[in-house]
Amino acid sequence: MSMDLFQLLLTMAILFILARLGSALVSRFGLPGLIGEIVMGIIIANLAFGDFSLMEFLDLSISNPNEPGSHASTTYEIIEALAELGVIFLLFSVGLETKVKDLLGSGKPAFLAAVLGVILPFAAGFAVIMAVDGDMNHAMFMAAAMVATSVGITARIIKDMKLMDTREARIIIGAAVIDDVLGMIVLAIVKGMAESGVSIANILSISIQAVAFVLVIILACMFVVPRIYDYFDDRRQKAVAAGKVPYSVNKLVLSIIVCLILSAFAEYIGLAAIIGAFLAGMLFADHAWEWDLEHKIESITTLFISFFFLNVGLQVDIGTLTDSSVLILAVGIILIALATKYIGCGIGAKIGDRQLDKAGFNIVGVGMMPRGEVGIIVASIGLGTGMMSTDLYAVVVLMSVATTIIAPPILSKMFRKKYQEEYRILPDDRI
Amino acid sequence: MSMDLFQLLLTMAILFILARLGSALVSRFGLPGLIGEIVMGIIIANLAFGDFSLMEFLDLSISNPNEPGSHASTTYEIIEALAELGVIFLLFSVGLETKVKDLLGSGKPAFLAAVLGVILPFAAGFAVIMAVDGDMNHAMFMAAAMVATSVGITARIIKDMKLMDTREARIIIGAAVIDDVLGMIVLAIVKGMAESGVSIANILSISIQAVAFVLVIILACMFVVPRIYDYFDDRRQKAVAAGKVPYSVNKLVLSIIVCLILSAFAEYIGLAAIIGAFLAGMLFADHAWEWDLEHKIESITTLFISFFFLNVGLQVDIGTLTDSSVLILAVGIILIALATKYIGCGIGAKIGDRQLDKAGFNIVGVGMMPRGEVGIIVASIGLGTGMMSTDLYAVVVLMSVATTIIAPPILSKMFRKKYQEEYRILPDDRI
Repeated sequence: MSMDLFQLLLTMAILFILARLGSALVSRFGLPGLIGEIVMGIIIANLAFGDFSLMEFLDLSISNPNEPGSHASTTYEIIEALAELGVIFLLFSVGLETKVKDLLGSGKPAFLAAVLGVILPFAAGFAVIMAVDGDMNHAMFMAAAMVATSVGITARIIKDMKLMDTREARIIIGAAVIDDVLGMIVLAIVKGMAESGVSIANILSISIQAVAFVLVIILACMFVVPRIYDYFDDRRQKAVAAGKVPYSVNKLVLSIIVCLILSAFAEYIGLAAIIGAFLAGMLFADHAWEWDLEHKIESITTLFISFFFLNVGLQVDIGTLTDSSVLILAVGIILIALATKYIGCGIGAKIGDRQLDKAGFNIVGVGMMPRGEVGIIVASIGLGTGMMSTDLYAVVVLMSVATTIIAPPILSKMFRKKYQEEYRILPDDRI
Repeated sequence: MSMDLFQLLLTMAILFILARLGSALVSRFGLPGLIGEIVMGIIIANLAFGDFSLMEFLDLSISNPNEPGSHASTTYEIIEALAELGVIFLLFSVGLETKVKDLLGSGKPAFLAAVLGVILPFAAGFAVIMAVDGDMNHAMFMAAAMVATSVGITARIIKDMKLMDTREARIIIGAAVIDDVLGMIVLAIVKGMAESGVSIANILSISIQAVAFVLVIILACMFVVPRIYDYFDDRRQKAVAAGKVPYSVNKLVLSIIVCLILSAFAEYIGLAAIIGAFLAGMLFADHAWEWDLEHKIESITTLFISFFFLNVGLQVDIGTLTDSSVLILAVGIILIALATKYIGCGIGAKIGDRQLDKAGFNIVGVGMMPRGEVGIIVASIGLGTGMMSTDLYAVVVLMSVATTIIAPPILSKMFRKKYQEEYRILPDDRI
């Protein structure tokens, strides 16, 4: 063996325990576990007692992009690979929950909320970074990182409060699905432009490529997948009717293969691997439940994804957070991130549904605020390809964590106020 | 990112597709999929058209133990890590199926069949390699690789033919469980001795260590685990009775943590990681069904384990198989492997159960023949630690594949002959 198996297992065990500990701790405060994992990553990267450094003990030397000579330890490379696979399977499972039917049928208010909720944060983020930093790549990645809503925590609040059939819940869930797809397209365009230069021709060709990729998958979901499914279903039924054992394919294996191929393909044409994984998930969304794919992929994600969020934290340079100019920028970006989603999504929903009252406007606007993992994933791609500075990376992590912490308590208060009587929510209901 | 994500995803996708293809092909002939995956690995390692080498295309340069300067590509190191994790989770799931209750209650014929079925192959394998090769480490690892029965395929035949409640089936399944535990102890002793030298003191200290590890886990399964379970079950019920939401732990996460810790610990004290994984599985065996652990771990194993068997094939040097002395040795070892299990297990079962007829003797003897993955895992540990030559590694792979191919058709024929009338098996029943 070329690697040290004991070191790898030890590092995996300790990282996994610390990540789950961080996750469990923040869960007690109603926050999503990933925040605890990121914070734990930041702590691990900076924990040292005298001569003892936890990073050294875990053999996690990270290659420094500013020092061409340095390179990562084998243990870190393997942990990083597990992290990358984790985020690929995470996006795959998000795709599994994104049915084309729901996407196309989610209605005008959801569609407009999603579109305006993408345009406003992107424009504001781009303008601010261009003004402060001046680097086009930095500005584009920051803008892209501000786009994507992570609706997981909002969805959980809605589910816990049993408000799924309210007008606002339907708009938020619909908008979040469209927002996911738009976010992927924005990321694709930004990554493509950062790599091949900004020009009208490039913007056009990359936009066309990204949109075409998404459209091909949507069309495949609508017309090709059902036919393939029907064909094999038909064969299977004929075999059973003839008393034969039907030949069957392991659906988990099939979906993993498609996920790996589309992820590799996305990387190959210059998009991000997670875009391929997300689209691969969409291909299986209609049958994910029937084949129990979500649960199976969840088991795989459980093992991997903690390493991703830990690694997000490991890469945050705590030094930058003591720099007051970075901190001021972070506060500004957080306020802009909150305001633009609130206004963009609220106005979009109101234009689409005139009957939406003031409280409804507020609920949709706040419900779409959390950026969660998606903004961080975008930023880590920027950092990995050298298109984002470590300062701005730390800002994005702070922005994602802050929006995810701030929105939930406001949202549940607003929901409670509007639906208290109708849905008999007790004022002290715990979320 | 310090690695090439596109290359990794491409390599994973192609390897995974080829592995599953190999698996599906051999399954058509009623053989276990792992044989197809190993053969596919051998093919991949040797496939080249003119200037095109598949190994190079996949960036899989393996470090050569005979050339200290050479080292493996990052892609290969990651694939190897996935393979190692795969076999750790495979042994963990074997442990999940090994209940201490069944282990202790499997009766005299099963116990004697297991013990004699371990002693005979070990003694014969050791003697032959000492005579032919003369290297003590080689002889010990070969002997250990000949010990472990892989009962998976036999169990499937018994299940497919609905013969679970026959005398022979009970003996075979019971013996296989005990055989697993004995095999782990043998591997622990062999690995420990190979690393710290052969002396009476060493043999004693390592044997005591290995047996103590197993005993501690068995005792923990009997006395500690039930109490922990009852304590938390009690707390949970009290919380529910008091109208509170009980605090619950993700069982999959808990079991992965225990598996990683015991695997790392086993490596640390000089045993193999898989021994720790197997024993970790035993700790959860009583609740695996309740917590749906087997299915969840199976999803993880599905993703990883193909890389292990492919890697087994990748490491087989096809050149050694054209060496007639290696081939002659392989044939000899295969015959000895078949004969010693047949005689050892048959006699053990007969001593334990005097009522067992000739046909029963044969069924137990043949049913315990397949070595499958376990022998290969032992050999790959030997190869990885430099305790086994590439020649002998190839011999073990051939032996494992051959015993696994030869036994099933004979076994099903013998079962059919004995139970045809009683169980109304049609002569042309397909397995």
